[in-house]
Amino acid sequence: MNSSTFGGFHGIVFDAYGTLFDVSAIISTCGDISDEPERFSQLWRSKQLEYSVLRTVMDRYADFGEITSDALDYTLSVFGVTLQHAQRRRLMQAWQHLPAFDDVRPALEHLHLAGQRMIVLSNGTRQMLEPLMAQAEIRKYLLAVMTSEDVQSFKPDASIYHLVNERIYARMNEMLFVTANGFDVAGAKAAGFTVCRVDRLGLPLDPLGFEPDMVVRDLNEMVDALIGN
Amino acid sequence: MNSSTFGGFHGIVFDAYGTLFDVSAIISTCGDISDEPERFSQLWRSKQLEYSVLRTVMDRYADFGEITSDALDYTLSVFGVTLQHAQRRRLMQAWQHLPAFDDVRPALEHLHLAGQRMIVLSNGTRQMLEPLMAQAEIRKYLLAVMTSEDVQSFKPDASIYHLVNERIYARMNEMLFVTANGFDVAGAKAAGFTVCRVDRLGLPLDPLGFEPDMVVRDLNEMVDALIGN
Repeated sequence: MNSSTFGGFHGIVFDAYGTLFDVSAIISTCGDISDEPERFSQLWRSKQLEYSVLRTVMDRYADFGEITSDALDYTLSVFGVTLQHAQRRRLMQAWQHLPAFDDVRPALEHLHLAGQRMIVLSNGTRQMLEPLMAQAEIRKYLLAVMTSEDVQSFKPDASIYHLVNERIYARMNEMLFVTANGFDVAGAKAAGFTVCRVDRLGLPLDPLGFEPDMVVRDLNEMVDALIGN
Repeated sequence: MNSSTFGGFHGIVFDAYGTLFDVSAIISTCGDISDEPERFSQLWRSKQLEYSVLRTVMDRYADFGEITSDALDYTLSVFGVTLQHAQRRRLMQAWQHLPAFDDVRPALEHLHLAGQRMIVLSNGTRQMLEPLMAQAEIRKYLLAVMTSEDVQSFKPDASIYHLVNERIYARMNEMLFVTANGFDVAGAKAAGFTVCRVDRLGLPLDPLGFEPDMVVRDLNEMVDALIGN
């Protein structure tokens, strides 16, 4: 790592979906409307990501809630499912009830007590993210929550990563970016951050021409590595 | 349609993969190395598309052959498959042996005889595309083949669509863009083309804020619709 000591970082930036909050919780909600909830939720999630990137390339921003709804429409069509209004609302609301991973609150508390400045930087909207942070009781540890809404484009577009400089005046490589998503590892590295990949699922890294500076299995391991040095 | 008569179009632009050439032919080649060739080839194809768009957002171009190879590496890792050199080469070469759909050659011949100027505009490289067009015996009908190599970015980025103006001096909406890919429908509409969607598989249209001007099941139906008017 470029900055090998804990004190060497002027701030830590966390991705939200898949990094702090468990997206796989959507699967059980999809069980109510499909016999194949895992495939259903996988297609929904992959279309959600696809649409966010495609809209960024086309410069046709729509907010992440709208994109999530569009991705649901597509997925319902593929699976041949028609929903009643209440069922549809329940699926969409599942995104506002994703649980945090078990290691999240203890890790953020630890870092906070050590005086670390922390930010969440997400493709989501504040409306989608605030309930998740409230439920996980981590909002109080965060200096700021920054989203795609502020720049009208999505990760891995460079502009969203540079939002961090509005709150933390430091060189990008003096800040640690923490994410479980392959495209976010690449985008954050391209933007100049020091990057920690959280490989919760033991998946290969998407080969996009960038390697993380550090790989951990969960946030406990990251906190140990940072403070242990 | 804006230009409802055949004569109203100053040129016809075709996408390649999925529109002229049958990408599903990859499945049988994948049968040699996986028990789940359909899932394997689906992940390979979806990562290929994902990496092309992500690299465009990050402004880190790599050619489509390299991206296809990277997507194969990722897919092999997920499926836990290790290949010998010859096996890997065979998988990669399958992209240079995709068959054209049955309707392609007759349709292009028909349009050519009617005096229509035609172009292929693809995310692929010339090296990947030329063997396909030679095998399908359609190269002689095409005024030009334009690729992502010429602009170092991928569809649905606007710059690649505007390449067409180098060969056909006409307003974008006076040219017909023909594609089976949802992101390409959106990108071509955003760029200003009149768009014909070829819905070969009966799939829903990706809801990206754009509708095609015309939807057909195959190119025969398109030729009939254009000349029948």
